[in-house]
Amino acid sequence: MHLFDQAISLKPTAKGCYVAQTSAAYANIVGPFGGITSALLLNAAMQHEDRLGDPIALTVNYAAPVADGEIIVEAQPVRTNRSTQHWLMQAVQGGEVVSFATAIFAIRRQTWSAHDAAPPSDVPQPKDLPRMSTDHRPIWARCYDMRFVQGEMPDRFDDIENSDSFSSLWVRDEPPRPIDFQSLSAICDSYFPRIFVRRRQLMPIGTVTLTTYFHADSAMLAKQGEDFVYASAKALSFRDGYFDQTAEVWSADHHLLASTHQMVYFRDK
Amino acid sequence: MHLFDQAISLKPTAKGCYVAQTSAAYANIVGPFGGITSALLLNAAMQHEDRLGDPIALTVNYAAPVADGEIIVEAQPVRTNRSTQHWLMQAVQGGEVVSFATAIFAIRRQTWSAHDAAPPSDVPQPKDLPRMSTDHRPIWARCYDMRFVQGEMPDRFDDIENSDSFSSLWVRDEPPRPIDFQSLSAICDSYFPRIFVRRRQLMPIGTVTLTTYFHADSAMLAKQGEDFVYASAKALSFRDGYFDQTAEVWSADHHLLASTHQMVYFRDK
Repeated sequence: MHLFDQAISLKPTAKGCYVAQTSAAYANIVGPFGGITSALLLNAAMQHEDRLGDPIALTVNYAAPVADGEIIVEAQPVRTNRSTQHWLMQAVQGGEVVSFATAIFAIRRQTWSAHDAAPPSDVPQPKDLPRMSTDHRPIWARCYDMRFVQGEMPDRFDDIENSDSFSSLWVRDEPPRPIDFQSLSAICDSYFPRIFVRRRQLMPIGTVTLTTYFHADSAMLAKQGEDFVYASAKALSFRDGYFDQTAEVWSADHHLLASTHQMVYFRDK
Repeated sequence: MHLFDQAISLKPTAKGCYVAQTSAAYANIVGPFGGITSALLLNAAMQHEDRLGDPIALTVNYAAPVADGEIIVEAQPVRTNRSTQHWLMQAVQGGEVVSFATAIFAIRRQTWSAHDAAPPSDVPQPKDLPRMSTDHRPIWARCYDMRFVQGEMPDRFDDIENSDSFSSLWVRDEPPRPIDFQSLSAICDSYFPRIFVRRRQLMPIGTVTLTTYFHADSAMLAKQGEDFVYASAKALSFRDGYFDQTAEVWSADHHLLASTHQMVYFRDK
Protein backbone atom coordinates (compact mmCIF):
# COMPACT_ATOMS: atom_id res chain seq x y z
CA MET A 1 0.00 0.00 0.00
CA HIS A 2 1.36 3.44 -0.98
CA LEU A 3 2.27 5.67 1.98
CA PHE A 4 -0.24 8.24 0.72
CA ASP A 5 -3.07 5.69 0.86
CA GLN A 6 -2.00 4.70 4.37
CA ALA A 7 -1.98 8.36 5.42
CA ILE A 8 -5.54 9.04 4.21
CA SER A 9 -6.90 5.66 5.27
CA LEU A 10 -10.25 5.85 7.10
CA LYS A 11 -11.73 3.10 9.26
CA PRO A 12 -15.55 3.50 9.24
CA THR A 13 -17.23 3.44 12.65
CA ALA A 14 -20.73 4.62 11.60
CA LYS A 15 -22.27 6.27 8.54
CA GLY A 16 -20.03 9.28 7.78
CA CYS A 17 -17.81 8.61 10.84
CA TYR A 18 -14.27 7.28 10.64
CA VAL A 19 -11.06 6.89 12.58
CA ALA A 20 -7.71 7.85 10.99
CA GLN A 21 -4.12 7.87 12.19
CA THR A 22 -1.52 10.55 11.51
CA SER A 23 1.30 9.36 9.23
CA ALA A 24 4.97 9.72 10.18
CA ALA A 25 5.80 9.89 6.45
CA TYR A 26 3.77 13.10 6.01
CA ALA A 27 4.95 14.86 9.17
CA ASN A 28 5.56 18.60 8.96
CA ILE A 29 7.58 20.73 11.41
CA VAL A 30 4.54 20.81 13.73
CA GLY A 31 1.84 18.17 13.10
CA PRO A 32 1.04 16.70 9.68
CA PHE A 33 1.61 18.35 6.27
CA GLY A 34 -1.51 20.46 5.56
CA GLY A 35 -1.99 18.77 2.19
CA ILE A 36 -2.47 15.38 3.83
CA THR A 37 -5.14 16.81 6.16
CA SER A 38 -6.88 18.26 3.11
CA ALA A 39 -6.74 14.85 1.36
CA LEU A 40 -7.98 13.07 4.50
CA LEU A 41 -11.03 15.33 4.86
CA LEU A 42 -11.80 15.06 1.13
CA ASN A 43 -11.45 11.28 1.37
CA ALA A 44 -14.11 11.20 4.12
CA ALA A 45 -16.65 12.62 1.63
CA MET A 46 -15.30 10.49 -1.25
CA GLN A 47 -15.78 7.31 0.82
CA HIS A 48 -19.31 8.22 1.96
CA GLU A 49 -21.97 5.90 0.52
CA ASP A 50 -24.25 8.85 -0.37
CA ARG A 51 -21.58 10.69 -2.38
CA LEU A 52 -22.72 12.12 -5.73
CA GLY A 53 -20.22 12.67 -8.58
CA ASP A 54 -16.75 14.23 -8.45
CA PRO A 55 -15.44 17.06 -6.26
CA ILE A 56 -15.65 20.55 -7.78
CA ALA A 57 -14.40 22.62 -4.83
CA LEU A 58 -12.88 22.00 -1.40
CA THR A 59 -12.12 24.47 1.39
CA VAL A 60 -10.15 23.26 4.41
CA ASN A 61 -9.76 25.42 7.52
CA TYR A 62 -6.85 24.61 9.82
CA ALA A 63 -8.23 25.47 13.25
CA ALA A 64 -5.56 24.07 15.55
CA PRO A 65 -2.38 21.94 15.45
CA VAL A 66 -3.04 18.23 14.79
CA ALA A 67 -1.34 15.99 17.36
CA ASP A 68 0.31 12.70 16.39
CA GLY A 69 -2.07 9.77 16.77
CA GLU A 70 -5.77 9.17 16.29
CA ILE A 71 -8.11 11.55 14.46
CA ILE A 72 -11.91 11.22 14.44
CA VAL A 73 -13.13 12.22 10.96
CA GLU A 74 -16.75 13.00 10.10
CA ALA A 75 -18.42 13.85 6.79
CA GLN A 76 -22.05 14.77 6.22
CA PRO A 77 -23.91 15.87 3.11
CA VAL A 78 -25.55 19.20 4.03
CA ARG A 79 -27.68 19.43 0.90
CA THR A 80 -28.12 17.12 -2.09
CA ASN A 81 -29.58 18.52 -5.31
CA ARG A 82 -30.16 16.83 -8.66
CA SER A 83 -26.57 17.21 -9.88
CA THR A 84 -24.72 18.90 -6.98
CA GLN A 85 -24.02 17.99 -3.38
CA HIS A 86 -22.71 20.18 -0.54
CA TRP A 87 -20.58 18.70 2.25
CA LEU A 88 -19.29 19.52 5.70
CA MET A 89 -16.35 17.53 7.08
CA GLN A 90 -14.40 17.80 10.32
CA ALA A 91 -11.39 16.31 12.07
CA VAL A 92 -11.61 16.05 15.86
CA GLN A 93 -9.00 15.29 18.53
CA GLY A 94 -9.68 15.25 22.27
CA GLY A 95 -13.27 16.37 21.63
CA GLU A 96 -12.17 19.55 19.83
CA VAL A 97 -12.27 20.43 16.12
CA VAL A 98 -8.70 20.64 14.77
CA SER A 99 -9.71 21.20 11.14
CA PHE A 100 -12.94 21.39 9.19
CA ALA A 101 -13.88 21.62 5.56
CA THR A 102 -16.65 22.20 3.08
CA ALA A 103 -16.86 20.62 -0.36
CA ILE A 104 -19.05 20.67 -3.42
CA PHE A 105 -19.43 17.55 -5.53
CA ALA A 106 -21.21 17.43 -8.88
CA ILE A 107 -22.13 15.25 -11.80
CA ARG A 108 -20.60 17.07 -14.75
CA ARG A 109 -22.23 17.18 -18.17
CA GLN A 110 -20.43 17.88 -21.42
CA THR A 111 -20.70 21.57 -22.41
CA TRP A 112 -18.94 24.24 -24.44
CA SER A 113 -15.44 24.44 -22.94
CA ALA A 114 -12.50 26.84 -23.29
CA HIS A 115 -9.31 27.94 -21.56
CA ASP A 116 -8.56 31.56 -20.76
CA ALA A 117 -5.17 30.62 -19.33
CA ALA A 118 -2.43 28.34 -20.62
CA PRO A 119 0.83 27.08 -19.15
CA PRO A 120 4.07 28.41 -20.71
CA SER A 121 5.00 26.46 -23.85
CA ASP A 122 8.80 26.54 -23.39
CA VAL A 123 9.16 24.77 -20.05
CA PRO A 124 12.05 22.29 -19.62
CA GLN A 125 10.83 18.72 -19.18
CA PRO A 126 11.13 16.94 -15.81
CA LYS A 127 13.75 14.50 -17.16
CA ASP A 128 16.01 17.49 -17.91
CA LEU A 129 15.71 19.00 -14.42
CA PRO A 130 17.31 17.84 -11.16
CA ARG A 131 15.12 16.55 -8.36
CA MET A 132 15.04 18.95 -5.39
CA SER A 133 17.08 17.63 -2.50
CA THR A 134 14.93 16.83 0.52
CA ASP A 135 17.82 17.47 2.96
CA HIS A 136 16.88 20.18 5.48
CA ARG A 137 13.24 19.95 4.36
CA PRO A 138 10.26 18.77 6.40
CA ILE A 139 9.75 14.98 6.34
CA TRP A 140 6.71 15.17 4.01
CA ALA A 141 8.84 16.64 1.19
CA ARG A 142 10.36 13.13 0.72
CA CYS A 143 6.90 11.99 -0.42
CA TYR A 144 7.21 14.19 -3.53
CA ASP A 145 9.57 14.40 -6.48
CA MET A 146 9.82 18.16 -7.13
CA ARG A 147 11.75 19.60 -10.08
CA PHE A 148 11.89 23.37 -9.98
CA VAL A 149 11.91 25.40 -13.18
CA GLN A 150 11.99 28.74 -11.35
CA GLY A 151 11.77 30.12 -7.80
CA GLU A 152 13.33 27.22 -5.87
CA MET A 153 12.80 26.97 -2.15
CA PRO A 154 16.07 28.49 -0.88
CA ASP A 155 18.81 26.11 0.31
CA ARG A 156 20.29 28.90 2.38
CA PHE A 157 18.18 31.48 4.18
CA ASP A 158 20.36 34.55 3.71
CA ASP A 159 17.64 37.19 4.37
CA ILE A 160 18.29 38.73 0.93
CA GLU A 161 14.77 39.47 -0.27
CA ASN A 162 13.60 38.41 -3.72
CA SER A 163 11.48 40.88 -5.70
CA ASP A 164 8.70 38.31 -6.05
CA SER A 165 7.64 34.89 -4.80
CA PHE A 166 6.82 33.16 -8.09
CA SER A 167 7.75 29.48 -8.44
CA SER A 168 7.17 26.94 -11.17
CA LEU A 169 7.94 23.26 -10.93
CA TRP A 170 7.08 19.72 -11.95
CA VAL A 171 5.85 17.54 -9.13
CA ARG A 172 4.55 14.01 -8.57
CA ASP A 173 4.11 11.61 -5.68
CA GLU A 174 7.27 9.72 -4.68
CA PRO A 175 7.14 6.79 -5.24
CA PRO A 176 4.88 7.41 -8.26
CA ARG A 177 1.15 6.84 -7.70
CA PRO A 178 -1.73 7.39 -10.17
CA ILE A 179 -3.16 10.82 -9.36
CA ASP A 180 -6.68 11.09 -7.95
CA PHE A 181 -8.67 13.91 -6.36
CA GLN A 182 -7.20 13.16 -2.94
CA SER A 183 -3.56 13.28 -4.06
CA LEU A 184 -4.24 16.31 -6.28
CA SER A 185 -5.65 18.15 -3.26
CA ALA A 186 -2.46 17.33 -1.32
CA ILE A 187 -0.23 18.45 -4.21
CA CYS A 188 -2.12 21.77 -4.07
CA ASP A 189 -0.48 22.45 -0.69
CA SER A 190 3.02 21.24 -1.63
CA TYR A 191 4.50 24.49 -3.02
CA PHE A 192 6.18 25.73 0.16
CA PRO A 193 5.09 28.98 1.77
CA ARG A 194 5.64 31.87 -0.65
CA ILE A 195 7.15 34.01 2.10
CA PHE A 196 10.20 31.69 2.31
CA VAL A 197 10.86 32.21 -1.41
CA ARG A 198 10.23 35.96 -1.23
CA ARG A 199 11.98 36.78 2.00
CA ARG A 200 14.64 34.05 2.04
CA GLN A 201 14.16 33.86 5.78
CA LEU A 202 12.65 31.15 7.96
CA MET A 203 9.90 32.17 10.36
CA PRO A 204 6.87 30.58 12.01
CA ILE A 205 4.05 30.15 9.46
CA GLY A 206 0.82 28.17 9.21
CA THR A 207 -1.88 27.88 6.55
CA VAL A 208 -5.21 28.94 8.05
CA THR A 209 -7.40 28.10 5.04
CA LEU A 210 -6.87 26.26 1.73
CA THR A 211 -9.35 26.23 -1.17
CA THR A 212 -8.95 23.92 -4.16
CA TYR A 213 -11.01 24.02 -7.37
CA PHE A 214 -10.99 20.83 -9.40
CA HIS A 215 -11.16 21.53 -13.13
CA ALA A 216 -10.38 17.89 -13.96
CA ASP A 217 -12.88 15.07 -13.78
CA SER A 218 -12.09 11.41 -13.04
CA ALA A 219 -11.42 10.62 -16.71
CA MET A 220 -8.84 13.42 -17.05
CA LEU A 221 -7.09 12.26 -13.89
CA ALA A 222 -7.06 8.64 -15.10
CA LYS A 223 -5.34 9.86 -18.29
CA GLN A 224 -2.75 11.77 -16.23
CA GLY A 225 -1.77 8.59 -14.37
CA GLU A 226 1.60 8.77 -12.59
CA ASP A 227 3.06 11.58 -14.73
CA PHE A 228 4.47 14.78 -13.34
CA VAL A 229 2.09 17.75 -13.14
CA TYR A 230 3.30 21.29 -13.86
CA ALA A 231 2.52 23.87 -11.22
CA SER A 232 3.05 27.59 -10.80
CA ALA A 233 2.59 29.38 -7.49
CA LYS A 234 2.55 33.04 -6.51
CA ALA A 235 1.42 35.46 -3.82
CA LEU A 236 -0.24 38.87 -4.14
CA SER A 237 0.36 40.49 -0.77
CA PHE A 238 2.09 39.94 2.58
CA ARG A 239 0.70 42.20 5.31
CA ASP A 240 0.53 42.26 9.08
CA GLY A 241 0.73 38.55 9.75
CA TYR A 242 -1.02 37.07 6.71
CA PHE A 243 -0.29 36.43 3.05
CA ASP A 244 -2.20 34.78 0.21
CA GLN A 245 -0.89 32.11 -2.14
CA THR A 246 -2.36 30.90 -5.44
CA ALA A 247 -1.29 28.01 -7.65
CA GLU A 248 -2.34 26.42 -10.93
CA VAL A 249 -1.78 22.71 -11.61
CA TRP A 250 -1.50 21.63 -15.25
CA SER A 251 -1.23 18.23 -16.92
CA ALA A 252 1.75 17.61 -19.21
CA ASP A 253 -0.64 17.95 -22.17
CA HIS A 254 -1.73 21.44 -21.06
CA HIS A 255 -5.04 20.80 -19.32
CA LEU A 256 -5.78 22.69 -16.10
CA LEU A 257 -6.32 20.06 -13.41
CA ALA A 258 -6.76 22.34 -10.40
CA SER A 259 -6.41 25.91 -9.17
CA THR A 260 -5.83 26.55 -5.50
CA HIS A 261 -5.74 29.43 -3.05
CA GLN A 262 -4.71 29.81 0.58
CA MET A 263 -4.20 32.34 3.36
CA VAL A 264 -1.17 31.79 5.54
CA TYR A 265 -0.33 33.20 8.96
CA PHE A 266 3.24 34.35 9.60
CA ARG A 267 5.13 35.93 12.45
CA ASP A 268 8.36 37.92 12.31
CA LYS A 269 11.07 35.80 13.90
CA MET B 1 -30.67 53.51 6.59
CA HIS B 2 -28.69 52.49 3.48
CA LEU B 3 -30.35 49.72 1.44
CA PHE B 4 -27.23 47.58 1.98
CA ASP B 5 -27.58 47.83 5.75
CA GLN B 6 -31.27 46.93 5.47
CA ALA B 7 -30.39 43.92 3.30
CA ILE B 8 -27.86 42.49 5.79
CA SER B 9 -29.86 43.44 8.88
CA LEU B 10 -30.09 40.64 11.48
CA LYS B 11 -32.64 40.48 14.29
CA PRO B 12 -31.11 38.41 17.14
CA THR B 13 -33.33 35.65 18.54
CA ALA B 14 -30.71 33.83 20.66
CA LYS B 15 -26.91 33.80 20.94
CA GLY B 16 -25.64 33.35 17.36
CA CYS B 17 -29.21 33.04 15.97
CA TYR B 18 -30.87 35.71 13.89
CA VAL B 19 -33.76 36.36 11.51
CA ALA B 20 -33.17 38.25 8.25
CA GLN B 21 -35.37 39.25 5.32
CA THR B 22 -34.42 39.12 1.64
CA SER B 23 -34.13 42.59 0.07
CA ALA B 24 -35.99 43.55 -3.12
CA ALA B 25 -33.17 46.01 -3.89
CA TYR B 26 -30.59 43.21 -4.13
CA ALA B 27 -32.72 40.75 -6.14
CA ASN B 28 -30.98 38.72 -8.83
CA ILE B 29 -32.64 36.85 -11.71
CA VAL B 30 -33.44 33.99 -9.30
CA GLY B 31 -33.25 34.80 -5.56
CA PRO B 32 -30.89 37.38 -4.04
CA PHE B 33 -27.55 38.58 -5.46
CA GLY B 34 -24.90 36.14 -4.18
CA GLY B 35 -22.80 39.00 -2.81
CA ILE B 36 -25.58 40.02 -0.43
CA THR B 37 -25.87 36.45 0.89
CA SER B 38 -22.11 36.47 1.46
CA ALA B 39 -22.37 39.79 3.35
CA LEU B 40 -25.33 38.53 5.39
CA LEU B 41 -23.48 35.39 6.54
CA LEU B 42 -20.34 37.38 7.32
CA ASN B 43 -22.46 39.87 9.26
CA ALA B 44 -23.81 37.05 11.46
CA ALA B 45 -20.24 36.38 12.66
CA MET B 46 -19.37 40.12 12.84
CA GLN B 47 -22.40 40.76 15.10
CA HIS B 48 -21.68 37.81 17.42
CA GLU B 49 -20.70 38.89 20.94
CA ASP B 50 -17.79 36.40 21.05
CA ARG B 51 -16.20 37.66 17.80
CA LEU B 52 -12.43 38.13 17.88
CA GLY B 53 -10.70 40.64 15.55
CA ASP B 54 -11.26 41.20 11.82
CA PRO B 55 -12.16 38.68 9.10
CA ILE B 56 -9.19 37.19 7.22
CA ALA B 57 -11.03 34.69 4.99
CA LEU B 58 -14.63 33.81 4.12
CA THR B 59 -15.97 30.91 2.04
CA VAL B 60 -19.67 30.87 1.18
CA ASN B 61 -21.29 27.81 -0.43
CA TYR B 62 -24.54 28.38 -2.30
CA ALA B 63 -26.43 25.14 -1.70
CA ALA B 64 -29.89 25.97 -3.04
CA PRO B 65 -31.90 28.94 -4.36
CA VAL B 66 -32.92 31.44 -1.64
CA ALA B 67 -36.65 32.21 -1.72
CA ASP B 68 -37.98 35.74 -1.11
CA GLY B 69 -38.87 36.28 2.54
CA GLU B 70 -37.51 35.20 5.90
CA ILE B 71 -34.07 33.60 6.39
CA ILE B 72 -32.90 32.02 9.65
CA VAL B 73 -29.20 32.83 10.05
CA GLU B 74 -26.88 31.10 12.54
CA ALA B 75 -23.22 31.71 13.39
CA GLN B 76 -21.06 29.70 15.78
CA PRO B 77 -17.39 29.92 16.65
CA VAL B 78 -15.98 26.43 16.00
CA ARG B 79 -12.61 27.12 17.61
CA THR B 80 -11.13 30.15 19.30
CA ASN B 81 -7.36 30.42 19.67
CA ARG B 82 -5.26 33.23 21.13
CA SER B 83 -5.32 35.40 18.02
CA THR B 84 -7.50 33.47 15.52
CA GLN B 85 -11.09 32.28 15.50
CA HIS B 86 -12.79 29.82 13.14
CA TRP B 87 -16.49 30.15 12.29
CA LEU B 88 -19.34 28.22 10.76
CA MET B 89 -22.42 30.09 9.55
CA GLN B 90 -25.58 28.95 7.82
CA ALA B 91 -28.77 30.33 6.25
CA VAL B 92 -31.86 28.18 6.59
CA GLN B 93 -35.28 28.35 4.91
CA GLY B 94 -38.09 25.85 5.50
CA GLY B 95 -35.81 23.79 7.74
CA GLU B 96 -33.21 23.27 4.97
CA VAL B 97 -29.77 24.84 4.54
CA VAL B 98 -29.80 27.19 1.53
CA SER B 99 -26.26 28.46 2.01
CA PHE B 100 -23.46 27.96 4.51
CA ALA B 101 -20.10 29.49 5.15
CA THR B 102 -16.85 29.26 7.04
CA ALA B 103 -14.75 32.20 8.15
CA ILE B 104 -11.50 32.93 9.90
CA PHE B 105 -11.14 36.03 12.03
CA ALA B 106 -7.88 37.23 13.55
CA ILE B 107 -6.23 39.92 15.57
CA ARG B 108 -3.50 41.20 13.27
CA ARG B 109 -0.14 42.36 14.52
CA GLN B 110 2.22 44.67 12.66
CA THR B 111 4.89 42.71 10.72
CA TRP B 112 7.19 42.99 7.72
CA SER B 113 4.85 43.64 4.77
CA ALA B 114 5.27 43.68 0.98
CA HIS B 115 3.29 43.44 -2.24
CA ASP B 116 4.10 40.95 -4.97
CA ALA B 117 1.32 42.33 -7.17
CA ALA B 118 0.36 45.89 -8.07
CA PRO B 119 -2.55 47.40 -9.96
CA PRO B 120 -1.76 48.99 -13.37
CA SER B 121 -0.50 52.56 -12.97
CA ASP B 122 -2.12 54.03 -16.11
CA VAL B 123 -5.78 53.41 -15.35
CA PRO B 124 -8.30 56.15 -16.24
CA GLN B 125 -9.95 57.66 -13.16
CA PRO B 126 -13.63 56.99 -12.35
CA LYS B 127 -14.58 60.62 -13.04
CA ASP B 128 -13.33 60.17 -16.62
CA LEU B 129 -15.34 56.99 -17.27
CA PRO B 130 -19.08 56.61 -17.90
CA ARG B 131 -21.22 54.77 -15.37
CA MET B 132 -22.45 51.42 -16.69
CA SER B 133 -26.13 51.57 -17.59
CA THR B 134 -28.22 49.30 -15.38
CA ASP B 135 -30.88 48.81 -18.08
CA HIS B 136 -31.30 45.12 -18.94
CA ARG B 137 -29.27 44.20 -15.85
CA PRO B 138 -30.45 42.35 -12.74
CA ILE B 139 -32.04 44.63 -10.08
CA TRP B 140 -29.01 44.43 -7.74
CA ALA B 141 -26.75 46.13 -10.32
CA ARG B 142 -28.57 49.42 -9.51
CA CYS B 143 -26.98 49.19 -6.02
CA TYR B 144 -23.53 49.73 -7.56
CA ASP B 145 -21.84 52.44 -9.60
CA MET B 146 -19.61 50.48 -12.01
CA ARG B 147 -17.22 52.18 -14.41
CA PHE B 148 -15.55 49.72 -16.73
CA VAL B 149 -12.00 50.27 -17.94
CA GLN B 150 -11.93 47.05 -19.98
CA GLY B 151 -14.07 43.95 -20.60
CA GLU B 152 -17.55 45.47 -20.16
CA MET B 153 -20.50 43.19 -19.58
CA PRO B 154 -21.93 43.02 -23.16
CA ASP B 155 -24.97 45.18 -23.97
CA ARG B 156 -25.85 42.85 -26.80
CA PHE B 157 -25.33 39.10 -26.59
CA ASP B 158 -24.24 38.39 -30.17
CA ASP B 159 -22.59 34.98 -29.53
CA ILE B 160 -19.29 36.29 -30.95
CA GLU B 161 -16.75 34.83 -28.51
CA ASN B 162 -14.06 37.00 -26.94
CA SER B 163 -10.56 35.54 -26.71
CA ASP B 164 -10.54 36.10 -22.92
CA SER B 165 -12.81 37.11 -20.07
CA PHE B 166 -10.69 39.78 -18.38
CA SER B 167 -12.47 42.84 -16.98
CA SER B 168 -11.27 45.83 -15.00
CA LEU B 169 -13.47 48.48 -13.48
CA TRP B 170 -14.04 50.99 -10.70
CA VAL B 171 -16.94 50.18 -8.42
CA ARG B 172 -18.62 51.55 -5.29
CA ASP B 173 -21.96 51.21 -3.53
CA GLU B 174 -24.76 53.38 -4.97
CA PRO B 175 -25.66 55.55 -3.16
CA PRO B 176 -22.12 55.83 -1.70
CA ARG B 177 -21.55 54.11 1.67
CA PRO B 178 -18.31 53.83 3.67
CA ILE B 179 -16.83 50.42 2.80
CA ASP B 180 -16.64 47.75 5.50
CA PHE B 181 -15.89 44.01 5.46
CA GLN B 182 -19.53 43.20 4.71
CA SER B 183 -19.82 45.51 1.69
CA LEU B 184 -16.35 44.51 0.47
CA SER B 185 -17.43 40.85 0.52
CA ALA B 186 -20.49 41.76 -1.58
CA ILE B 187 -18.39 43.79 -4.04
CA CYS B 188 -16.27 40.64 -4.47
CA ASP B 189 -19.26 38.99 -6.18
CA SER B 190 -20.28 42.01 -8.30
CA TYR B 191 -18.12 41.40 -11.41
CA PHE B 192 -20.67 39.52 -13.50
CA PRO B 193 -20.07 35.92 -14.54
CA ARG B 194 -16.93 35.70 -16.67
CA ILE B 195 -18.66 33.41 -19.15
CA PHE B 196 -20.97 36.25 -20.25
CA VAL B 197 -17.94 38.40 -21.10
CA ARG B 198 -16.08 35.55 -22.78
CA ARG B 199 -18.91 33.95 -24.70
CA ARG B 200 -21.16 36.98 -25.23
CA GLN B 201 -24.12 34.67 -24.74
CA LEU B 202 -26.64 34.46 -21.91
CA MET B 203 -27.15 31.05 -20.30
CA PRO B 204 -28.21 29.69 -16.91
CA ILE B 205 -25.37 30.13 -14.37
CA GLY B 206 -24.99 30.05 -10.59
CA THR B 207 -22.05 30.52 -8.23
CA VAL B 208 -21.61 27.36 -6.15
CA THR B 209 -18.81 28.64 -3.89
CA LEU B 210 -17.19 32.04 -3.24
CA THR B 211 -14.01 32.58 -1.22
CA THR B 212 -12.82 36.04 -0.18
CA TYR B 213 -9.47 36.87 1.41
CA PHE B 214 -9.35 40.17 3.29
CA HIS B 215 -5.95 41.82 3.00
CA ALA B 216 -7.27 45.06 4.53
CA ASP B 217 -7.90 45.62 8.20
CA SER B 218 -10.51 47.96 9.71
CA ALA B 219 -8.14 50.95 9.64
CA MET B 220 -7.42 50.53 5.90
CA LEU B 221 -11.14 50.27 5.15
CA ALA B 222 -11.88 53.37 7.25
CA LYS B 223 -9.30 55.25 5.15
CA GLN B 224 -10.96 54.03 1.93
CA GLY B 225 -14.30 55.48 3.00
CA GLU B 226 -16.84 55.92 0.18
CA ASP B 227 -14.28 56.03 -2.66
CA PHE B 228 -14.36 53.79 -5.69
CA VAL B 229 -12.27 50.60 -5.50
CA TYR B 230 -10.43 49.29 -8.57
CA ALA B 231 -11.09 45.67 -9.45
CA SER B 232 -9.85 43.23 -12.06
CA ALA B 233 -11.52 39.90 -12.74
CA LYS B 234 -10.55 36.90 -14.86
CA ALA B 235 -11.19 33.21 -15.37
CA LEU B 236 -8.74 30.38 -16.02
CA SER B 237 -10.90 27.62 -17.45
CA PHE B 238 -14.47 26.84 -18.52
CA ARG B 239 -15.14 23.11 -18.73
CA ASP B 240 -18.09 20.76 -18.63
CA GLY B 241 -20.47 22.89 -16.62
CA TYR B 242 -18.10 24.81 -14.32
CA PHE B 243 -15.72 27.73 -14.55
CA ASP B 244 -13.55 29.57 -12.03
CA GLN B 245 -13.35 33.32 -11.52
CA THR B 246 -10.74 35.34 -9.62
CA ALA B 247 -10.70 39.04 -8.79
CA GLU B 248 -8.43 41.51 -7.00
CA VAL B 249 -9.83 44.61 -5.28
CA TRP B 250 -7.49 47.58 -4.87
CA SER B 251 -7.86 50.92 -3.10
CA ALA B 252 -7.34 54.09 -5.14
CA ASP B 253 -3.96 54.46 -3.40
CA HIS B 254 -2.79 51.01 -4.56
CA HIS B 255 -3.39 48.81 -1.50
CA LEU B 256 -4.83 45.35 -2.03
CA LEU B 257 -8.07 45.24 -0.05
CA ALA B 258 -9.28 41.77 -1.03
CA SER B 259 -8.70 38.88 -3.42
CA THR B 260 -11.57 36.58 -4.26
CA HIS B 261 -12.22 33.29 -6.04
CA GLN B 262 -15.32 31.41 -7.07
CA MET B 263 -16.55 28.36 -8.98
CA VAL B 264 -19.62 28.88 -11.10
CA TYR B 265 -22.01 26.35 -12.60
CA PHE B 266 -23.21 26.93 -16.18
CA ARG B 267 -25.41 25.10 -18.64
CA ASP B 268 -25.47 25.43 -22.43
CA LYS B 269 -28.71 27.18 -23.37
